Amino acid sequence: MMIVKRVLDVEPETFAEGVHIRWVLSKKRDGVPTFSMRHFTLKKGASIKLHSHDWEHEIYMIKGKLRVRSGDDEAVVEDGHAIYIPPNKPHSFEALEDTELLCFIPCKGEP
Amino acid sequence: MMIVKRVLDVEPETFAEGVHIRWVLSKKRDGVPTFSMRHFTLKKGASIKLHSHDWEHEIYMIKGKLRVRSGDDEAVVEDGHAIYIPPNKPHSFEALEDTELLCFIPCKGEP
Repeated sequence: MMIVKRVLDVEPETFAEGVHIRWVLSKKRDGVPTFSMRHFTLKKGASIKLHSHDWEHEIYMIKGKLRVRSGDDEAVVEDGHAIYIPPNKPHSFEALEDTELLCFIPCKGEP
Repeated sequence: MMIVKRVLDVEPETFAEGVHIRWVLSKKRDGVPTFSMRHFTLKKGASIKLHSHDWEHEIYMIKGKLRVRSGDDEAVVEDGHAIYIPPNKPHSFEALEDTELLCFIPCKGEP
């Protein structure tokens, strides 16, 4: 059955200081089979510390400005940018402005 | 290695009359392992006819207004909506305004 949601209607959960996550489409809640859609908001100055896992990220920047590090790579991204972070690469995020983004992962990365 | 792209810098391909697709992140071009990020533009009045395949869609509406049909379900969606269309459900799209969206599929759906 088709699922339609307004992303901002999904209940946000605290992910880190100044960072909220919305599980928009997930295996656990919605039964999607392959990959999960999450929406993040980061307040200016908020960050997600260096961490690593054996699944990738595909990110779409809805708005804001974000410094992304992955291994030895670093970029500052803005509205309309797409970012791919490969599996097993330590990565971190730092919001240079209030930021809103989508971050997709394979369902195996769901908690 | 991290990949960063401005979505609109990706070369568009004609998908149907008034419909363009950009393969933003794909297995074929970028080596992503699980799922592919595509960006679509649909001119007001353009449509994608009823079709079906054995993989799902996860869609994020960046802007515009779209009528979506999937099986017996129908919805009109706008900016900030997320849509899940399950595998093997015949579905179609009709742009009620100029529309821009992301549509993710498992890599097995790449041509």
